[in-house]
Formats: sequence, C-alpha cells, structure tokens
Amino acid sequence: MDIEIVSIGNEILEGSIVNSNAAEIGHALFEAGFPPKRQVVLPDDPLLLKQGLQESLQRNRFVITTGGLGPTCDDNTRAIAAELFNSDYTYNEEVAEELLHRYHGKLTSLKDQATVPTKATIMKNRLGTAPGLIFHSDSSTLIMLPGVPLEMRAMLKEQVIPFLEQQFCNSPRLFRKTLHFFAMQEPAVDQLVRPLIKENPELQFGIYPSLGLLTLHITVKESDPSAAEAKLQPPYQMIARSLAHHVFHAPSGRIEEAVQQMFVAQGWTLSAAESCTGGRLASRLVQIPGASKYFLGSLVVYSDNVKMNLLKVSPQDLHQYGAVSSEVVSQMAAGLLSSIDSDFGVAVTGIAGPDGGTSEKPVGTIWGAIIERGKSPYVWPFRALGSREMIIERCVNALLSELLRYCSSKILSCK
Amino acid sequence: MDIEIVSIGNEILEGSIVNSNAAEIGHALFEAGFPPKRQVVLPDDPLLLKQGLQESLQRNRFVITTGGLGPTCDDNTRAIAAELFNSDYTYNEEVAEELLHRYHGKLTSLKDQATVPTKATIMKNRLGTAPGLIFHSDSSTLIMLPGVPLEMRAMLKEQVIPFLEQQFCNSPRLFRKTLHFFAMQEPAVDQLVRPLIKENPELQFGIYPSLGLLTLHITVKESDPSAAEAKLQPPYQMIARSLAHHVFHAPSGRIEEAVQQMFVAQGWTLSAAESCTGGRLASRLVQIPGASKYFLGSLVVYSDNVKMNLLKVSPQDLHQYGAVSSEVVSQMAAGLLSSIDSDFGVAVTGIAGPDGGTSEKPVGTIWGAIIERGKSPYVWPFRALGSREMIIERCVNALLSELLRYCSSKILSCK
Repeated sequence: MDIEIVSIGNEILEGSIVNSNAAEIGHALFEAGFPPKRQVVLPDDPLLLKQGLQESLQRNRFVITTGGLGPTCDDNTRAIAAELFNSDYTYNEEVAEELLHRYHGKLTSLKDQATVPTKATIMKNRLGTAPGLIFHSDSSTLIMLPGVPLEMRAMLKEQVIPFLEQQFCNSPRLFRKTLHFFAMQEPAVDQLVRPLIKENPELQFGIYPSLGLLTLHITVKESDPSAAEAKLQPPYQMIARSLAHHVFHAPSGRIEEAVQQMFVAQGWTLSAAESCTGGRLASRLVQIPGASKYFLGSLVVYSDNVKMNLLKVSPQDLHQYGAVSSEVVSQMAAGLLSSIDSDFGVAVTGIAGPDGGTSEKPVGTIWGAIIERGKSPYVWPFRALGSREMIIERCVNALLSELLRYCSSKILSCK
Repeated sequence: MDIEIVSIGNEILEGSIVNSNAAEIGHALFEAGFPPKRQVVLPDDPLLLKQGLQESLQRNRFVITTGGLGPTCDDNTRAIAAELFNSDYTYNEEVAEELLHRYHGKLTSLKDQATVPTKATIMKNRLGTAPGLIFHSDSSTLIMLPGVPLEMRAMLKEQVIPFLEQQFCNSPRLFRKTLHFFAMQEPAVDQLVRPLIKENPELQFGIYPSLGLLTLHITVKESDPSAAEAKLQPPYQMIARSLAHHVFHAPSGRIEEAVQQMFVAQGWTLSAAESCTGGRLASRLVQIPGASKYFLGSLVVYSDNVKMNLLKVSPQDLHQYGAVSSEVVSQMAAGLLSSIDSDFGVAVTGIAGPDGGTSEKPVGTIWGAIIERGKSPYVWPFRALGSREMIIERCVNALLSELLRYCSSKILSCK
C-alpha cells in the first residue's frame, strides 16, 4: 500500500504555480483508504528527473507522476520512464484513431502522441491529447498522468483509483469519518476528543483549524468496511451529538455548501452587502454549483459614496462613527434589503489592512450584521487576524458561521 | 547551491491543505537566484520522517523544512533534527524573555518553546511562538521554519534568504527577467522567442500560460549581476518592444495590480456589474492593497430580478435574448454607471456551468462589456473553457485584459 506522488516541472519547483495536483491526488488516495507515503517535486532536467524517479520507484511500490507527458520539449518524463523500464515505442492505432476523430484531423502532435512505449498499459485521456501510462516491474508500478488538472482529475477518478482498489482489495486500508465545525474553538473539540483517544487506541483523531473553521478526522485501519464502521461510528456519533449546534454537513467540506443546502431546503433567499470582503463572500457562495437557487446578489460597496448612494447609509454616521462601526453595518444591512428583496441579508465592514488601521480600530477590526426581512439587524463585532488575504477569508467564514447559527436557531424555534 | 525544500505534515500529504509554503519558498529561492533542486512532503510519522530527512540531508547541501516546530504532539521534527545532529537541549533565556514579554506571561507552552537544541542557531520568530532553527554539519545545513505561513514568510524573507545569500555570495546564480502578457496567444510569443533561443544558447526561455494570461521568463546563470543584466537586457527589450501593446507591468505579476496602477496614475475610478463571475472580479481587484484608491464597488447581480431592479435591464430583452446576450450585458453596463458614478465600468454575464448550457449557448459562453462615462458600451462575446472555477477565473482575466487594452489605447490617443 506504499504510494508516492511525484510532480514534475520547474514551474512547480520554483513556485510559479502551487502544487494543487499533488493535493488532489493525495486527497483522493486518502479518501480511497490508501494515503500516500510521500510527495516529491522534481525538475525538468533529465538527469535529476531520472535520478529522482529511480529513487521513488525503489522506495515505494506505487509511484504516481503528473506532468511531462505533453508533445513539447518537456516530454522528458515519458522517455525517461521508457528507459527505466527498458521499453521500445510503438505507434498505437487506437490512440491515433481517437485523437484523429476528436480533433477532426487537426492535431499536429498526433503522431507523437500516438507513439507510446510498448511495455506500458495505456489509459485513455478523454479530455486531452496525452494518454496516461502504467509501467509494471516485479518490484514497482509507475502510473503516469498528464499535468493538466482537468485531464489528470478525470483519469485519476475514472481509471487510477479503480486500478489501485483492485490492487489493494485484500489489504487493510484507512477508513475515515469527518466532522466540520463552525463557531467553535479548537480547545473545546480537543477537550471532548482527549478521553476518546485513550478509550480507542486503534483510532486516530486529527483536529485541523482553518481560518476560523475546524475539521475533525477519525481514522482507523481495517480490512473490512463494516468492522471499520463499527469502530468509527460510536465516537463519531458522540461528538456529533455533543457539538450538534456547531456541526455543518457538506460533501465538499465547505461551509458555503452547508449554507446553500439550508437555504435551498427552507426555500429562503440570501443577499449580501460587502465592504472589506470586496465580493469574496459572494464569490465563495457562487463557487458552489446551483447557487442561483437561493443567492440573489451582493452589493460590493467599497467606497463610502457608494455606501451612501446604494445602501442609504447616513453621511453623518459615516463621519461620526466611521465606516467600520455598528451604526454603519446596521444601516448597510437595512439598505441591502431595500435594494434586493431577499429573505435574509448579510453585511460586513472592516479593516482588511495592511494599511488603514488605528490604535482604536486596528487592522482586523470587523463589524458583521445579519438581517431577516421585517426585523431589525443582528449586529456583532469581531477581530480577524493575519494577512489581508487571511482577514478577508476569516471574515467570510465568520459571517457564514454566524448565518448558519442564526438560521439554525430560527429553524429550531419554528419546530 | 543545492537546496531542497521539505514540508512536514499529514495534512499536506493527504491533500487537506495545498502546499502553498513550498511554492512560496521555491519562489523566493528562485527570485534570489538559487532555485531548489527538489521539494518533498513527509508524514508526521517519526520513523518515515527521520528517514526522509536523512535522505534529504545526504542528497542536498541545504535543506529547508517547514512545520512540526509547534508545542504539541507534532514537534517530532525538532526532536528528530536534534537526534540527527547529536544535540542536547538547553533553556534559552533570551527566547523565554521575549515570549514572556510578547504574550504577557500567558503562554502555557513557554518553557517548551524556550527549550531549544544546544547545537542549533536560533532564528527569532517575531510573529509566533516557535523559534526557527539552523543546524550545521560538515556536509549539510538544516534550516527549520515554522509551518504557519505568516511566520514562515517573515522568517524566510528577513533571515533565511540573507543567510543563503551570504553562503552563496561567490557562486554563480540564476538571474531572471519576466514579462507578463495579456490578450495574447502562446504561439505568437513562441514564434518571437524561437530565434532568440538559437541566438542565445546561454539563456533559458520559458513561456507559462495561465487561464488566458501568459508569463515569459528569461534566465541566465552568472556570478556577476551586471554581466547577467548585459545578457538578459537585449532579448528582454526586443520582446517587450515587439509586443508592447500586450505587456503589463506589475511587481506581483497580477493583472489586477496593473489595472490598479493604470487607474491610480490616470486618476480614474472603476466599478463592475457581475453576473457569472459572482463577485470574483471585485474580490480580485480588492486583493491588491490600496484598491480603494480607484475601485468604488461592484453590483453582483446573480438573479434576473436583481438585474432588472438594480441595473434596469429590460424584462423583455431578458426574456427575448436571455441573460447571456449582447443586449443584456450592454444594459448592465449602462445601468451600472447610473448606480455607481465611476469613470469606467465593466460588466459580464455568462454560463459558468456545470449546468445551464444549451446547444446554442454552451457552458462557457460569456458576454463582456466596458463602458466609459458618457459613451455607449463596448460589448464582445467570448468562450471560456474548463471547470466552473476555471471559467470564472478566465472571465476575470479576459475582462481585465480587455479593460487594459481599451484604456491603454485611450491613453495613447490622448497623447
């Protein structure tokens, strides 16, 4: 079950792009129950690349690579792999025919892409030109995926994970249950988990804070899925029940998906008025497909004039209390529902930095508001720490947490 | 000059978080002229971690780690490093005093954090609790940074890069010039670069497309900065001049920064009306500190009703032509400047998918508009490919590219 992920390319090594492919593969392997033992990033340089690949193949049974399969000068990887596995090349009619068909004969690199190593098993690439390859030897298996994320993702899900599941079908693997928390501090979850760690030595508990939200993983190594379930279920249920008011459920693990599920289930609509978050709240809601079912829009009121004109915020209050104040956020929320006729509204104003802070209102000072049609807004202050980027993300998480809390108690009180 | 980056933690290995630390370190090293030879991600497991660290130290002269320095159970890393370098521990008064001062005596892990390996040089952590460490042996140097990005970043910039520059002061290093292109296809740049590759065998040219934008790096290995400059300058100037209308300049390499620079320099203001991008355009503009100097706000009009109410889009046209049409985007742009009194406005409507596409208007069909106060909007259609997330990002890049193009020619025509 020893798998290593190898990403190839100077652009990753030199930080021109973040290695999201490795994270995706790592996550998919973990979800399937066989987490990787190591990730490696290698340069395009053929010598260093060959050396690195050899080390990986000696170290772990399965090596999954991304990148370097294209038709250009960086198809080093394919040639090096063929060399490592002593393979010749052959023109593959099936690959050629499909590319011919899909690209209407317009693919200049067709001949190159259809000439594949004889000893490799071919994985079809239904979204791109470079086929995936699997090389076998007695001691190791090399699985080569394209570097383009869309193509990599499809091949991983449709071909690689099923292939590995077959390979590992009788080995013990990891099973996991996950809980997501909002409006919750790490020590509170930790306190609940500590006795469970002692009572369940077979289980692993991991708490991961992320910009104001928390994730808990409970993991067990088992061959039999139902035995795993029997071990994971009791502590999972105990924690889920104890902290029920702080748990959100979302397949993606994203709080905006939990908000969407709640609003769609209740038939409610939502809008926003954003100052310091500058559209990030809206853009996070809209990242979840189907957001149009409940999310109507957001007024990004970055300048004070726009706050006054669009949201009818009082110029006197802006002047007297400042844009980051209880008075202004409250008027933003009220003005929002006058402009956009939604059931609920969220408003936020704050100082995201790095400039603009004062001793009285330092960078990270935020005021949030939630408003329900026909009611006065609920307004609260908070402090978000970190860089500008982190402050904006923390703001969005805090607003959505508070929205979930507010709306959950409304649902409970209606029952 | 052989540097390896090692990131430690199951949460990275299993893809719960993307390895942005490694990308940042790789980028900083590359910028400083000594790109890393390899990146590795190791698990928390002490055995695998020790084994992996040993391999890295044998392979490369300098190893930079992040993570595992905290006061909790995952301070494995520090203990393992101390073991590898045969070091005892000692209570460091200076570290203790600073933590005592900074946390007003409230830090429970103070004693633990101030007890450091005797053989390590201490790097102060002015933003967090865990000090950085440098271990030396005859053959290798291990530089250990905290995993919290803010703390890592400060320590890297203020202490690690200067330390490495001192180590490498007489060795040849990489020097680089970078050009960023908008509204430009890769083959066009490629065509210009190909003859330069032949003429300049010492130089490396790399073209990196990213969601509709392009970056070109020209790199040379040199000991002397002015010799490097003399080699890089001619091809850089040639390309910059040939493609002047498609080059943007921004220290961060981000097109939104180029937009901000142009608008602030001209004293212009900007606003937006966003449908399919759902606030992403605004949120990208606002990511650049100082955006409030020119960016007034954005109307995220996700639902058709909000398009009609806030932007006065005609219900008949919405019905007849659909929300994704020349007519609607044109009215959105006009309605925008009636609501927000900016000099320029950008509007966009489209189908980001995965659902909502038809054979006539498939997913990725987009209409964009740019409007200047007192003029009729300039409207154009385009097609954005990829996942929902990619389509949204491509939209923003396409809009900002077109805005740069539109405004540049206005500036030129005024001269």
